[in-house]
Amino acid sequence: MVRIGIDLGGTNIVAGVVNENNEIIAKAECKTNLPRPYKAILEDMAALSKQAVENAGLTMEDVKYVGVGCPGTCNVFTGLVEYSCNLDFKEVPLQAELAAMVGKPVYIENDANAAALGEAVAGAAKGAKNALCITLGTGVGGGIIIDGKIYDGFNCAAAELGHIVIVVDGEQCGCGRQGCWEAYASATALIRQTKAAIEQNPDSLMAKAAQEKGKVSGRTAFDAMRAGCPVAKAVVDQYIKYLASGLTNMVNIFQPEVLCIGGGISHEGDALLKPVMEHIERDRYSKYSKHQTRLCAAALGNDAGIIGAACLGEQ
Amino acid sequence: MVRIGIDLGGTNIVAGVVNENNEIIAKAECKTNLPRPYKAILEDMAALSKQAVENAGLTMEDVKYVGVGCPGTCNVFTGLVEYSCNLDFKEVPLQAELAAMVGKPVYIENDANAAALGEAVAGAAKGAKNALCITLGTGVGGGIIIDGKIYDGFNCAAAELGHIVIVVDGEQCGCGRQGCWEAYASATALIRQTKAAIEQNPDSLMAKAAQEKGKVSGRTAFDAMRAGCPVAKAVVDQYIKYLASGLTNMVNIFQPEVLCIGGGISHEGDALLKPVMEHIERDRYSKYSKHQTRLCAAALGNDAGIIGAACLGEQ
Repeated sequence: MVRIGIDLGGTNIVAGVVNENNEIIAKAECKTNLPRPYKAILEDMAALSKQAVENAGLTMEDVKYVGVGCPGTCNVFTGLVEYSCNLDFKEVPLQAELAAMVGKPVYIENDANAAALGEAVAGAAKGAKNALCITLGTGVGGGIIIDGKIYDGFNCAAAELGHIVIVVDGEQCGCGRQGCWEAYASATALIRQTKAAIEQNPDSLMAKAAQEKGKVSGRTAFDAMRAGCPVAKAVVDQYIKYLASGLTNMVNIFQPEVLCIGGGISHEGDALLKPVMEHIERDRYSKYSKHQTRLCAAALGNDAGIIGAACLGEQ
Repeated sequence: MVRIGIDLGGTNIVAGVVNENNEIIAKAECKTNLPRPYKAILEDMAALSKQAVENAGLTMEDVKYVGVGCPGTCNVFTGLVEYSCNLDFKEVPLQAELAAMVGKPVYIENDANAAALGEAVAGAAKGAKNALCITLGTGVGGGIIIDGKIYDGFNCAAAELGHIVIVVDGEQCGCGRQGCWEAYASATALIRQTKAAIEQNPDSLMAKAAQEKGKVSGRTAFDAMRAGCPVAKAVVDQYIKYLASGLTNMVNIFQPEVLCIGGGISHEGDALLKPVMEHIERDRYSKYSKHQTRLCAAALGNDAGIIGAACLGEQ
């Protein structure tokens, strides 16, 4: 028997067929095409499920269930997506209606939580009893795995790890608070910090490189730092300080066996992880503990959400 | 059968006999008298256990086990206190040596974790599946209860909830970091903030009240605020802002069913809890969730640690 994992995103919907070794053996995808009514999105999810199964050379008879990772608050008890800002969902009966469409049991979960489960089952945190997965993207997403299971609080809304204030009265965050970690450590924040440095240092190597490329991305500062630009190095150093500050908070709170970092910026590898780890080693409360959290880059990329969603029925 | 719970503190050691309803039926206590060798402390703990049992009109035959809440990192797998700054313990075999002295199984746990378990078993968080307990004392202590059990990470060093940075580059914290929540929201921090305000406003009602009393405590600002002092109100407002900032972080991370606040400052009751709750309601990420965390004062005071310690064998 296989399972289907669906990653329902604001831009794309991807359905994957996942085998018993937690490998994706076929996929199907389409654009999310927002805004549109939720029923149309569910119909696409049902169609993609069938398409993916066909692409795997199987039929729906071979499918045990469908799991869905969805942005926002997914109530795993009621099967409702209580609220999703990105999708403009409010109290959407995703579980019940999709189950009726595909004729299979459906499980739902927040997308970041599903991705964390994917990394814990088959990725960078495989075998870890406790793990945290932090994704540095448009925002700072998080998922908490305790005893191999997703921890999402008593109301299924927990693990908003990007929304911890690390600078009281600091930068405005999209959530309404000021000074959230997300406002300092997301890719969006790094781009903002990079742009500010370019504006203040128009003659820097980084400014010239950005002008040549015609855009600023999460890589701009890292690339310019590697090319020897001191302005870029200052941007990266400051970004790493904020990132490490929140990560050390997470270590002091959770002492997870594995702390895994995903999202585009995690591709910087050791240029990111090494200095971050130095900060954590210096600052963590558990200096005297024999066993320390292992920091690593996420391994599965966008597949984490699909594999995690496909494991929701075993939670 | 009864169980013995011991609260091993930097100032006092208290042993309590706990019955099957998780009530303390007798106690015995002595001074910790630091500094002294750990063996002397263990001998006192064994003697207090016997004394408490005698005070209850029972014998050690009636005792199932002894649980100990101890400051620092207690490895529940090895039975070693890996490190306790307060007690100057390093790799102390508390479990094995105390068990040999009392002739009963011994369980150990960090004292804040034990207190959280006590509140979850018999206090303010009774019946809650998930709960956080925050103690506002010399520091900001924390305990995490998930599915009725203590969560302490893969190395037994988790739940250092006071040591999350809420102001990057902020006030120096005793742990070595700058800007920890503890450096803003502990009773110690409130006293420091109160003293600073008194120094800057020597003619304020609060300054006069402090001079009359001959000291500044965690109550000084709250009392002066109630007497109508605007300087005191500003101190309390600022303290509550920092306290609520960290508590909202905890809600966004854990979405616990119950968030319970202990320590001396929690005796302020609604003067503290009401404005804190207003901050949390305004700032939490889960604005749209039907079910929201319940904030309350801890119910058991210093007994929480004894009752929690007495429940360690059922974890």
